[in-house]
This record gives sequence, C-alpha cells and structure tokens, in this order.
Amino acid sequence: MDPRIREHAEIIANHSVDLQSGDNVVIDAHPVAEDLVVALHEVIGEKGANPLTTTKRAGKRQTRAYLRASDADDFETPEHELALIEETDVYIAVRATDNATQTSDVDPEIRSASQQAYSPILEERLSKRWCLTQFPAPANAQLAEMSTEAYENFVWDAVNKDWEEQREHQENMVEILDPADEVRIVSGDTTDLTMSVDGNPTINDHGEHNLPGGEVFTAPRPSTVEGEVLFDMPLYHQGREITDVYLEFEGGEVVQHSAAKNEDVLSEVLNTDDGARRLGELGIGMNRDIDRFTYNMLFDEKMGDTVHMAVGRAYDDTVGEGNETNDSAVHVDMIVDMSEDSFIEVDGEVVQRDGTFRFEDGEV
Amino acid sequence: MDPRIREHAEIIANHSVDLQSGDNVVIDAHPVAEDLVVALHEVIGEKGANPLTTTKRAGKRQTRAYLRASDADDFETPEHELALIEETDVYIAVRATDNATQTSDVDPEIRSASQQAYSPILEERLSKRWCLTQFPAPANAQLAEMSTEAYENFVWDAVNKDWEEQREHQENMVEILDPADEVRIVSGDTTDLTMSVDGNPTINDHGEHNLPGGEVFTAPRPSTVEGEVLFDMPLYHQGREITDVYLEFEGGEVVQHSAAKNEDVLSEVLNTDDGARRLGELGIGMNRDIDRFTYNMLFDEKMGDTVHMAVGRAYDDTVGEGNETNDSAVHVDMIVDMSEDSFIEVDGEVVQRDGTFRFEDGEV
Repeated sequence: MDPRIREHAEIIANHSVDLQSGDNVVIDAHPVAEDLVVALHEVIGEKGANPLTTTKRAGKRQTRAYLRASDADDFETPEHELALIEETDVYIAVRATDNATQTSDVDPEIRSASQQAYSPILEERLSKRWCLTQFPAPANAQLAEMSTEAYENFVWDAVNKDWEEQREHQENMVEILDPADEVRIVSGDTTDLTMSVDGNPTINDHGEHNLPGGEVFTAPRPSTVEGEVLFDMPLYHQGREITDVYLEFEGGEVVQHSAAKNEDVLSEVLNTDDGARRLGELGIGMNRDIDRFTYNMLFDEKMGDTVHMAVGRAYDDTVGEGNETNDSAVHVDMIVDMSEDSFIEVDGEVVQRDGTFRFEDGEV
Repeated sequence: MDPRIREHAEIIANHSVDLQSGDNVVIDAHPVAEDLVVALHEVIGEKGANPLTTTKRAGKRQTRAYLRASDADDFETPEHELALIEETDVYIAVRATDNATQTSDVDPEIRSASQQAYSPILEERLSKRWCLTQFPAPANAQLAEMSTEAYENFVWDAVNKDWEEQREHQENMVEILDPADEVRIVSGDTTDLTMSVDGNPTINDHGEHNLPGGEVFTAPRPSTVEGEVLFDMPLYHQGREITDVYLEFEGGEVVQHSAAKNEDVLSEVLNTDDGARRLGELGIGMNRDIDRFTYNMLFDEKMGDTVHMAVGRAYDDTVGEGNETNDSAVHVDMIVDMSEDSFIEVDGEVVQRDGTFRFEDGEV
C-alpha cells in the first residue's frame, strides 16, 4: 500500500478527529476507497477504538437505485441510523466514487425530499468530532481532468502537510474577520454583495472538519445579505455541473436566480426549504497548495484567491450567541474567483485585492 | 443486471424478512456483492423502507487490519453499533468475499476476544427479522472449486425456488422430531452420539433466516449429549479449513477433541467460553437441490443426506420454555455425511437410513 495512505489515516486520526481509546467511530466510504478504510482500521485498532463502516452517503449506485424506486411522500428519518449516530463519537466521511455522475438521473425533487428526512441525522453528525476527506479514486481524477497518478499526488500533497504552519498563515485573516461587522465582496461588475458578520465567530479551518483544510469561514447574519453575486467557478452538485450561478439578495433572501447550465437543479436546491434561499456561510480560500480547480468543493473552496458562499444551513460554531442562525436541509457552496479585478472590504477597509492579502503585502 | 439478482432480492424481501413499509433495514455486505445490494435498495425503495449498508462482518480486509492492530484486552461492545441494531427491524447479511482466506493470518485468540465483545450485538440481531444469504462472487466460486458462471447457476438455483414446496417436504421431518425425546446419530464406527431434544421445538427452515434454507433443526438439551462424533465433511472456519473434527462428549461437554488439519483453530473455538464446549444445534440437511459440497456452511449444512451440529450458542426459538439453553459467543456448525453406513434413530425408531427418510420410502 502507498505509504501516503497510512500517513493520511494518521492525520485524520491524530490531527482531524483527535481519536481516543474507546471512541465509537463510523467511517462512511465507497468501496473504491478501501485502501484508506483499511489504513484507518489499522490506526483505530492501535488506539483501541471501535470502527463501523457504512456506505450510506458514498455508495452512489445503491443510493440511485433506492431514490429512483422511492416515492417522495414516503421518506422519514431512519431511526436506526439516528440511533447509530447518537452513540457515535467520531464520524469520518471519505469521498470517492467510481462514477461522479452516478446520481445524475435522479429526480431532484425526490433527492430534496430524502435530504429533508435525513436532516436530523446530519445535525446529529455535525455535533460530533467529524472529518470529511477525499480518496483519490480514478473517477475523481477523471472529474478533475487529471491522470490517476497526478491526482493522487495532488490529493496527498494537499492532505499530508504541516497543518500548524497553515493554521498560523490563516490566523492573520481570522484576526481581521472575527471582530468585523460589515463584509463586502466585489468582483468585476457582476458581484457586489454586502453582509454583516457581527458577533459571528470566524473559524480557522486547518484540516480538522475538512481534510484538506485551508479556509477561514463564518456565517453571515442571514437577513443582512444584500446585492448580487455571480459565482464564476463551476459547481458540481449531485452529479450535475451548474455554471454561472447568479443570485440576487434582498433582505437576506434570494429574490432572483439563474444559471447558464442546469438551472433547474439550482432551483430545486433553492426550493428545498426557507433556509435554502439564504446564506449560511462565507468562506475565504487560503490554501495555495491547491493550485487548480478539480470540480470538487472540498478542494476548490480552499483554493487561494477565491471566496465561497453557501446557501442553506449555517454551522453552529459560526453563529454567535443570540444571533439568528440559518436552518436548512441543504448546504451548497459556490465559488467566486477573486484573482483579478476583485477585492474584499471589511468595515470599509480593503483587506484583499486581486488575491493578495493586506497582511502579506503590507498594503493592497 | 442478471434478472436472477432482482429475483433474489425479491425473495429476501417478500419471503425471508417480510419487508414492510417503514422498516429500518441494515444490509451488511462486501462490495463484491454490490449488484445484490443495489437490487435490494430498489425493492426497499419500492416498499418505502429505510436502508443502511454496512461492511462490518463482510469487509474482511478492513476487519483483518483492525484485528491485527488490536490488543485482546481492548475490545468492548461498540455501543453505537448496538444502538443501530436495537432500532433495526430487518437485518440482511450478504455473504460474499474477494478472498475467502483474507483473515487466515489473524490470531485466533484476538478473534475470539473480539467475538465475545460483539456477542450482545449478535444477540440483538437475532431478535429481529433477519436473513443470511450468499452472493456468488468469484472468490466464493473458487472456494467451491467451480467456475464463476457455474457457481452463479448453483447459487441462484438454490435460492430462487419454490419455498412452499420445500417447506412441505421438510414438515414430514418436523413432525417426527418436534415431539421426540432421544435422538441417536450413527455413522460408520466413528460416530455414535445420543442426546435429548425433549421439549425443544424443531424449526422448519424454508428460506427465512437462511437463504437458501433447507433443513430442520432444533437444540439438544445441552447436558444430555453423550458419545462421540467424527465430522467427516471439512469445515471452513474464519479463513481456515479444519478437517476430520472429532469430539467426545460426557455429560454434554466436550472432554476430548482433535482435528487432522488446523486443530489449534478448533481448540480456540472450544475455549471461547463454557458454551463453546457444548452443543447448541442439531440439524438435518434436506435440500436436494444443493447437490455438492462448496466449503460454505450456508449451503453445505442444507445438503441432502447430511446431519450437522453446532458447538456454541443455541437459537432462542429452538429452546423450549423452562429448558436449559446454551449460551456462547460462538456458533460453529460441523457436518456428518449420512449417505452411507449411517442412520438416525428417534426414540428408538430408525427414521433415516443411508440418506433415505422413512416418510419417503415407507420403510428404511
């Protein structure tokens, strides 16, 4: 087995989820990620923790068969899975597939109904020590338009790194955003969006919940979002590419939307519930080792010179005490390229221009 | 997909586990059985039930890694898995592997310790609607010394059949064994064993808990087993073949044992706990469609002209009210060939001789 797989497993266990003896662990993974699942079992055995592997989220072919055979009215929260997650200490979600477009012929309405029923389980999961990571399977390499070997190098370089150093780099931006009130994102003449993050904590993502990490993120106060945004980086959602997503916000709510490709999938997302039409996250990509777009949000949103926002659910730890949160069954990230003709303004001061931070250059 | 896979899934759902709308279902399967898992998801979706797939028992490579890295003292009952099974209505275990000898280099002592910790979960599972079945993976075909196509035919012929007809054939033997007291099994000059089954119900296995089914079975009263038995059909346990298992019973307990091959594995089984040295099952194989030995207990024990016994745990529904049961963390079946120079005697009357039943011939 490639020694980088064992290294990946150790970073998950020791850095991301702080695995302890006696922990009840769930690993969710597609069979193509078997090598990483095996390496994780080795580490879990050494620690004296208890592993269980599921293929719930990752087993796309079975999910497709189930969803296509299901009636939208029939979904209910599976109590057995909820009970499992309630007693789980550590949840490790491994992304990898044998066909990234496996669920492209599932009715988006059915999927939304299923996700709504699943929402209490997602909520429970997010209250645990959890980590979402990637295994470099051939189909994921294909999606990234890379050879399998080059993609393996890309993934393991991004994952198996010095996370303390990355944390320190990002802390500069946390110190700006955490005490801030108003944030304004401007890019070309298509994006000019303002929002308040007043009182909402900014998180330094250095490879804990997401591996790779490499962003700082917070939650907008949902009702304060105003303006328009064009997400000019493509989005790969549930097996379909959505391009040029345009959203216009008034009083925090999407009042107009469009997409160049697969607009119906976007509409379905926004119609999931009330929270799906409001922002739940603002993130700044700061991982310069992720130097290319790979159609994979876990990596793409961490790219240097990008900003991303998610419609839907806000993460609890980004919502300040007493502040309004955004609840939803979905959380869908979308990216704006900030490398050219763009700036980020915090409380009236430009903190990043064309991808360069003030704390890097002294000025911008 | 081969239409026999969909048929298999329907028999599991409609005949074996009586799947209902709203049922919480766990499927445990190795990825090589993906086709059957997908077909099951289709049927489960149609019914409006809730599927979750795990690879706990079936994912041998991960299990091997976990067990080899573990310390025997560290095992504890995984509470998250127990919580899952407590809230589960239907448990479907699919046997299939990519390497039948995958766990052959796991220390038997470690495995026993792990099984003991797992025992409350097994107990919980057996209280649900459950089914154990087989998918004809290439490695299982290899174990059976058959081509993959011939093995597929063998498995699907044995599984996709008229179970009502099989049930009626077996009911003849249930009527003999259910009210009986003493059973005597004699084969050649190596096996002469007596036991009481007084008050213990005899179960007609027609493809419910086991698919294929094809046996009638009950539990001996544990302390009444006396005599000696040579299991002349080989046994494939945890990745290792054990041949010519010889057990001698006094007062229900194994007082002497040997095996021609892998005797240490047999010893490890018998030393798991007190119940592992006593019988938990007596079964009569009655499925004549299973016409060859395939090194797979799920099929082998159902063969016509065989008798099998298990050391370890007795199934609850085979123990009469007030009768002594046999508790254990293990349940290991072993087979005696009854086709030649053999007979089964029930309360002093011969009911089968050289594989032919009295109710088939009128006399034996």
